[in-house]
Amino acid sequence: MIRSKCRNLDRRIVVGIGDDAAVIKTSPHRLGVLTTDALIETVHFNLDYFSFYQLGWRSLAANLSDVAAMGGKPIASLVTLGLNNRVSVEEVLEFYQGMLALAEKFNCSIAGGDIVRSPQELVVSISVLGEVEPKKIAKRSGAKIGDLICVTGALGEAQVGLELLLRRRKNKRFKFPVHLTRKHLVPLPRLAESSFLTSNFEISSMIDISDGLASDLYHICEESKTGARIFADQIPLGPRAIYGARLLEKDPLQFALYGGEEYELLFTLSPSQAKRAIFRAKFKITPIGEVASSREGIFLHKKGRQQRLLPKGYTHF
Amino acid sequence: MIRSKCRNLDRRIVVGIGDDAAVIKTSPHRLGVLTTDALIETVHFNLDYFSFYQLGWRSLAANLSDVAAMGGKPIASLVTLGLNNRVSVEEVLEFYQGMLALAEKFNCSIAGGDIVRSPQELVVSISVLGEVEPKKIAKRSGAKIGDLICVTGALGEAQVGLELLLRRRKNKRFKFPVHLTRKHLVPLPRLAESSFLTSNFEISSMIDISDGLASDLYHICEESKTGARIFADQIPLGPRAIYGARLLEKDPLQFALYGGEEYELLFTLSPSQAKRAIFRAKFKITPIGEVASSREGIFLHKKGRQQRLLPKGYTHF
Repeated sequence: MIRSKCRNLDRRIVVGIGDDAAVIKTSPHRLGVLTTDALIETVHFNLDYFSFYQLGWRSLAANLSDVAAMGGKPIASLVTLGLNNRVSVEEVLEFYQGMLALAEKFNCSIAGGDIVRSPQELVVSISVLGEVEPKKIAKRSGAKIGDLICVTGALGEAQVGLELLLRRRKNKRFKFPVHLTRKHLVPLPRLAESSFLTSNFEISSMIDISDGLASDLYHICEESKTGARIFADQIPLGPRAIYGARLLEKDPLQFALYGGEEYELLFTLSPSQAKRAIFRAKFKITPIGEVASSREGIFLHKKGRQQRLLPKGYTHF
Repeated sequence: MIRSKCRNLDRRIVVGIGDDAAVIKTSPHRLGVLTTDALIETVHFNLDYFSFYQLGWRSLAANLSDVAAMGGKPIASLVTLGLNNRVSVEEVLEFYQGMLALAEKFNCSIAGGDIVRSPQELVVSISVLGEVEPKKIAKRSGAKIGDLICVTGALGEAQVGLELLLRRRKNKRFKFPVHLTRKHLVPLPRLAESSFLTSNFEISSMIDISDGLASDLYHICEESKTGARIFADQIPLGPRAIYGARLLEKDPLQFALYGGEEYELLFTLSPSQAKRAIFRAKFKITPIGEVASSREGIFLHKKGRQQRLLPKGYTHF
């Protein structure tokens, strides 16, 4: 409903509402990528297991991941903090340090922003402006029947980190190696991977896994008007996801399917292109399924059986 | 401290932290303007006197005013809403309607955004991408000794609107004509005025009055390393400010000096340029003082006396 109201006012909006980021024609041969993300304390993070440094890093990472999902490169970001009076100046500086550490890795400037008062929850709102070459734009729509569905890296590690932190919050004696939480606390957006993929291959659709593999696959299928077949035993489970799931006595596959804030890329391309990409890439690409007709729906094939994949996020406990 | 940490990473940042908006080189001959603003319920607005339509309008207006202050034109905006469960779908649509009504006036697209959950206060975070021609950039720095200090429109009307609404909140029987609150509830950013000024004249510095005339004059003087002399009897008091101040039994000059969210432009230019601008403009431009040396400080001249102008906002009651 909102989407139809926000019909684009001029032709400069190349990609509008309904994708990871907006793409805007800033000059005849240049396209800007614009994305924004708000994080609210208790909803998106808790300060009892997030340091301010990690929070700064993570807040920017979510935005850079959206830029990566469009095939873009970041240029500059603005950050607005809504602070209550429990936050100290040192903590704010720590937040900026974390954000800058990530920004510098990807040559993204912190170009401005604002600090306002927030009576209750801490609020972080970040906007990033990037750029994308017209031929590199990777939208959610564009997946074609027969394309392979691939992911970068390994899955389940972000969710396992969150689960371990939540478990320890309930039970202070619960112990685990700290590195298992890294992908939740300080994720790395896949900008280099996105650039490699969109520069060298015909990526028919792409999204970053922020809601969870199942949900984000739904976004691609919805925008591309297709279905999908995913093969459970092909989903690359991260070693930390397997280790952490054992500690938690849970199934790592559930983390991989439904865990959010993974920030890996989920994308589709033709089988021949996929073969070449896997051969040439210096990072891990795993085909996990194939694009089917929309009539077929979205299914997970597991041990010879198939079950409808639901676009839900991970449900705690 | 934060500013020094956020040293610009590359040469594409033309104006960084410390101005109304960031200016970024998006291509050799194009400059992007990027600005963001967060509004938090109870801190920046109250829903007992703001309709959702007005809130949508006002939230975007603050950002468009920042674009105007840089001499730019808006292209597209992204909006993130943090909603608690008291907000209905109809109210969200009403918010978008208000935002769109203003966006359409200035040819600004709503290109995307996000809706997240906020446990307590409603949060609105808007980012706007615009563009500015290199020769039209109006920074806060650049005011020169001897320049005239001018404002667009009339002052005090935004603050008077807020004061009337706050008085009625305390005393339900307090009555006033609704139009007196318009400039607080649905302000019009001065984009056309900014474009006229920056296209035709050498504007040495410019800012939008969002913190209040006194505070924003301080921002200009600080960034330009100057002082200022302001003449109280030259400050253009809006008729609504005078009328409303009478109802409130207050001094309209205080509203004009310290009232925030006025969204008029405060700018400096040489006396000869000012003369031409006032002659040619189809809107009201009023010289209210002159740029002095920084050693001289920032003073208000009133009835033959001079007093130090303090960079404070309006203090209620």
